[in-house]
Amino acid sequence: MIDFGEHFSMSLEDMIEEAYLNAIASVDKGLDPKEIEAAWYGTVYPAMGNSGLVLSHATGLFGIPITRVENACATGSDTFRNACFSVAAGLYNVVLVVGAEKMHDEPGGLLQRADLKRLWMGRGVTMPAFFGLRATAYMHKYGITREQVALVSVKNHHNGSLYPHAHLRFECSVEDVVNAPYVSYPLGLYDCCPVTDGAAALILARADIATRYTDNPVYVLGSGLATDSFVRGGDLTNFRASQNAAKQAYETAGVKPEDIDVAEIHDCFSITELISYEDLGFAEPGQGVKLLDEGHVHLGGEKPINPSGGLLAKGHPLGATGAAQIAELYEQLRGEAGPVQVKNPEIALQHNVGIGRFATGSVGCVHILGR
Amino acid sequence: MIDFGEHFSMSLEDMIEEAYLNAIASVDKGLDPKEIEAAWYGTVYPAMGNSGLVLSHATGLFGIPITRVENACATGSDTFRNACFSVAAGLYNVVLVVGAEKMHDEPGGLLQRADLKRLWMGRGVTMPAFFGLRATAYMHKYGITREQVALVSVKNHHNGSLYPHAHLRFECSVEDVVNAPYVSYPLGLYDCCPVTDGAAALILARADIATRYTDNPVYVLGSGLATDSFVRGGDLTNFRASQNAAKQAYETAGVKPEDIDVAEIHDCFSITELISYEDLGFAEPGQGVKLLDEGHVHLGGEKPINPSGGLLAKGHPLGATGAAQIAELYEQLRGEAGPVQVKNPEIALQHNVGIGRFATGSVGCVHILGR
Repeated sequence: MIDFGEHFSMSLEDMIEEAYLNAIASVDKGLDPKEIEAAWYGTVYPAMGNSGLVLSHATGLFGIPITRVENACATGSDTFRNACFSVAAGLYNVVLVVGAEKMHDEPGGLLQRADLKRLWMGRGVTMPAFFGLRATAYMHKYGITREQVALVSVKNHHNGSLYPHAHLRFECSVEDVVNAPYVSYPLGLYDCCPVTDGAAALILARADIATRYTDNPVYVLGSGLATDSFVRGGDLTNFRASQNAAKQAYETAGVKPEDIDVAEIHDCFSITELISYEDLGFAEPGQGVKLLDEGHVHLGGEKPINPSGGLLAKGHPLGATGAAQIAELYEQLRGEAGPVQVKNPEIALQHNVGIGRFATGSVGCVHILGR
Repeated sequence: MIDFGEHFSMSLEDMIEEAYLNAIASVDKGLDPKEIEAAWYGTVYPAMGNSGLVLSHATGLFGIPITRVENACATGSDTFRNACFSVAAGLYNVVLVVGAEKMHDEPGGLLQRADLKRLWMGRGVTMPAFFGLRATAYMHKYGITREQVALVSVKNHHNGSLYPHAHLRFECSVEDVVNAPYVSYPLGLYDCCPVTDGAAALILARADIATRYTDNPVYVLGSGLATDSFVRGGDLTNFRASQNAAKQAYETAGVKPEDIDVAEIHDCFSITELISYEDLGFAEPGQGVKLLDEGHVHLGGEKPINPSGGLLAKGHPLGATGAAQIAELYEQLRGEAGPVQVKNPEIALQHNVGIGRFATGSVGCVHILGR
C-alpha cells in the first residue's frame, strides 16, 4: 500500500503504480511481473470507461484479464474475494488485486457525484447523519455514554499516530473528541473518518506454490459477503450484513471469534467499531464497550482492533480500504508491522461494512487470514 | 431475459425482476429461490450506492452475497465469468447472474454521463466515430466495399425480425443500409446498434448437480478475458483483446474455431462483426466477408452468427448484453430458440468487446458453452 492522505499531487494512476511497485518489491524471493496472470481492480469511481484499464496503464500489465469490482465501501474486500475464487478454481497461479480511490479532486466531491445525492443528500441525510442516528439509538438502548463512544476514536488515533501509512497521525483525548465541533450529533470531528486518497495492492498465489515467493506466507482461511436493506426492517444497533458475512467467514475458516488475534474492522465512524465488535462476535450485544474499558482491543491487549488506526485515523479511500486492511494484516501476521506490531498473531480478521442506496449496512464483507 | 427495447415504463428493478422470474420459470424441474446461494450483478450505471442491492430489491433475494462487476461493454460476460469462478472453486452449488442496463431516462443520455465525455465527446469523438475509423481502415486495407460491410446489417436485421426478444424487428436491404443517413462515415443508421433497455438472468449450478434442475443442461467449457490499449499501438483492423480472450477460451475449452456451431458475437457496429470473425478465428484476416458472401454465417449456414439479430437488431443494453448472449446460446443448445433455432448445435461461442477510456477494444471476453 501507499501512505494514505491528501494526494493532490498524485493521479489515480500514480497511486496505483506506487502501491503495485511496493507490493512487487515486498515479495521476499522476488516476483517477475510476467508471472501475474490476471488482476482484479476495485474502485468506486469513476463509473464507466475505465474498467480494468487504469490498472494496465499504471502498472504496464497489458493483455491480461482484469475485472473491475464495485461494492460500495466493501469494494476493496470484495475485489480480493473474487480474485480468491479464480485462484481457488484452479484457473490462475498468481493474480494481482488493487484497490484504489481518489477521494479528492472530484467536482463537488466524490459523494456529491454518487447516486446517493439524488435520494438523500439534498434532504440533509449525509453519511454522518446516518451514523449519528445509529449512535443515538445504540447509546439509548444500552445506556452507553458519549465519552464511552469516544474511546474508539482515542484508541484509533493513538494507533494511527504510530502507523507510518496513516493519514491522521496525532493523538486525541476523550475531552478532545467530546468537545470537537459536531458533524452530526452525537458524532464530532474525531468520530468521523477523514476524506483520504489511497491505494493498496496484494499479490495472491496458489497455496501450494506460495513458498516459491516467500518462506513466510499468509493464507486466506475464510471469506463471507452478505447484503441487507432498510426495507427488511431491523435494528439500528447492529449490521445484519456484517453478522451474516462473519458467520460465513468463520464457517469457511473453521474458526471462532475467540480465535481471532488481531483485526482490522470498519470504523468509518466511532460508533461503527463499537457495533462491529458485537456483529463479529467479539462481544455480546451492548457489551462492546467493555472491550474498550478493559483495554482488550488496544495495542498490547489480547485482541487488538485496528492497530493501523483504522479508517478513523488511517483514512477511508473507498475502493482501497478493504485491500489496505488485508495488506496490514499480512504485515501483522508476518511480524512486519513495526511500531504497531501486535504480539505473535496467528489468525486475523478483516471486515468492511458498505453503505449503499438502501441501507447503512447494505453490504458486509469479512475475510479471515492465517499463518 | 426480457424483450429488449425502449422501456420507458419500466425501472431498472422492474427489468431485473422480469428477467429473474423468467429465469426461475425456465428451470425444467423447478428451482426454489432459497437454493440461490450467491449472485453476481453486472451493470455499467449507476456507479455507486447500488452495489448488488438493486438486485436484492428486485428479486427479494436478501442476505446472500452479491458482487457487482463492471467491465464496459463486456460487463455482462465478465459478471458471468466471476460467478463461474465461485462455483468452480467449490464455494457454491447454485448462483444467479443478472446483467441489466437502463440506457434511456438518464439525464443527457447514458454515454453523456460516462467519463468518456471528458476526454472524447467534447471533441466529437463519439462511439460511431471510433468505429467509423475502423471501418474505413478495414475497407482500405482489404479492398472491401461499403456494400459488403452492409451485409452484416442485412443479415442481423433479418435474424432480428424473427427473434421475439429483439428491439428492432424489421428487415433491411443492402440499399437501405447504404442509403440510410450517415451517423459517422461510412457507418449509417443501420450499421449502428440502437439505444436499448434490457436485462437478462442466468442460473448457474455445479456441473455434477445440474441434472437436479434439468435433463438438458448446458455446460460452460471455456472462458477468456483480455485487455488492450491504444498506447500499445496496433492496428485498427483487429481487436487484440478479442484475439487474446478467444485464445484463452479455446484453450480452456479444448476446442478450435472450426468446432463452433453457433455464436453470439459483438456487433455494436456492422464493422465490429466483420473484424470479430477474424479475431475469433472463423476467417483469416481480410477474409471475413467471404463468410457473408457465401452464406456461412446466416441462419441455415454452417456457422450461424448472431441468430438473435445481434446488438444491431436486438439492441445493446451494456450490462445486459453479455448475459443475454449466453441466455440465447443456452436456448440454441437446448433446441429452444424457436424461429431462430439453428440445426443441432453442440458447441457455442459468446463474445463481447468493450470500449473503455483507452481503446475501442479495451477489453475482450469470450465464453464457450456446450451440451
